[in-house]
Amino acid sequence: MSSSHSVWRGLVATVGLVLTAEGLYYLFRYLKWVREQQPRVLFFPAPVTCVRPLLLASPGRCDCPLPHRESALSRMARLLLSARRSIDVCVFTISSLDLSGSVLVAYERGVRVRVITDSDYMALASSQVGTFRKAGIEVRHDQDTNYMHHKFALIDGSILITGSLNWSAQAIFRNKENVIIIKDADIVKAFTEEFERLWNEYDPTKYSFSPQSS
Amino acid sequence: MSSSHSVWRGLVATVGLVLTAEGLYYLFRYLKWVREQQPRVLFFPAPVTCVRPLLLASPGRCDCPLPHRESALSRMARLLLSARRSIDVCVFTISSLDLSGSVLVAYERGVRVRVITDSDYMALASSQVGTFRKAGIEVRHDQDTNYMHHKFALIDGSILITGSLNWSAQAIFRNKENVIIIKDADIVKAFTEEFERLWNEYDPTKYSFSPQSS
Repeated sequence: MSSSHSVWRGLVATVGLVLTAEGLYYLFRYLKWVREQQPRVLFFPAPVTCVRPLLLASPGRCDCPLPHRESALSRMARLLLSARRSIDVCVFTISSLDLSGSVLVAYERGVRVRVITDSDYMALASSQVGTFRKAGIEVRHDQDTNYMHHKFALIDGSILITGSLNWSAQAIFRNKENVIIIKDADIVKAFTEEFERLWNEYDPTKYSFSPQSS
Repeated sequence: MSSSHSVWRGLVATVGLVLTAEGLYYLFRYLKWVREQQPRVLFFPAPVTCVRPLLLASPGRCDCPLPHRESALSRMARLLLSARRSIDVCVFTISSLDLSGSVLVAYERGVRVRVITDSDYMALASSQVGTFRKAGIEVRHDQDTNYMHHKFALIDGSILITGSLNWSAQAIFRNKENVIIIKDADIVKAFTEEFERLWNEYDPTKYSFSPQSS
């Protein structure tokens, strides 16, 4: 066997190895993408834990006596905090300091936030809608006696969080509740269109000043 | 060319054609299955329509003045009526005659029905829980002051209906609501496990007769 043959065989083997490695890399990335597309579910009540360290501008710790382990609540807070471009919130009751705090932290970091909620429940003392507005976030709401009863949020226009869970401590820590996290493009598109439809319907320039009864 | 050659060529062409047709058939079935696995969404309020013809034992019609066209409500009723083996209902408020009626029709046809609901809301005059029980359907409920706030149902252990929608006329015809219909095996499994967990937790033989406050 000549030495030029041996060089060629080595070259072919190297190229083959590189192509195989690259193929495996793309296969791995594809399988990871497929796995990420799968919807996930969180069930509540969540154990009472402290999520304050997640909300600090720089990595920090909290010395309060509550446990600091992962929970359905911390997973939901992390998801809101993972937003890079936008958070669209369309939730009936918004009083949880942990979830509204996560949205506020993202907003302060430059994420565009829009909030749609229910006019009756935003008037409750515990509602965080006032805090959102004071921070500069635009909030829109229905103007009738029916309920804007959705409980969904869209992260970066590509992740949908939806379920039975209102954003309240009662719902998070005491009720039986569920939240689905879903990336399916058609479902995300349908909820995005619903959000834009309601955002337009609840435009304050369209208010009639004699509230509708239905 | 001999005639035996021509026979062989005809045979090969026929087998090729049959295999191609079969391949296309399975490809079509697979694509149909993939499409069916995609989650779907229904938004409410639904227009006020009559779904009574769907609930009749034999195909019939209804002469009431309401429209009889398809709507988010009729799609949800059809889904409940499509059950062949089981319906597991886990819903906070059950007062809609259309949706409870669909479950009752399936039950009368031999479908196994189990219902989990909230103890506070089942006491309302409009609740259909009493009708379920009179028909022989087993209903279980929480025994504390928190809410069993889920709004989901499982059809034949393979289709999940879940969202913000309580089974009430207010929710169906007046509120902004959503329902996702999902067949993803992992999600269906998670909700099935949640149902079985609550079904076991709310077993009446486990009641304490001094109700818990939390």
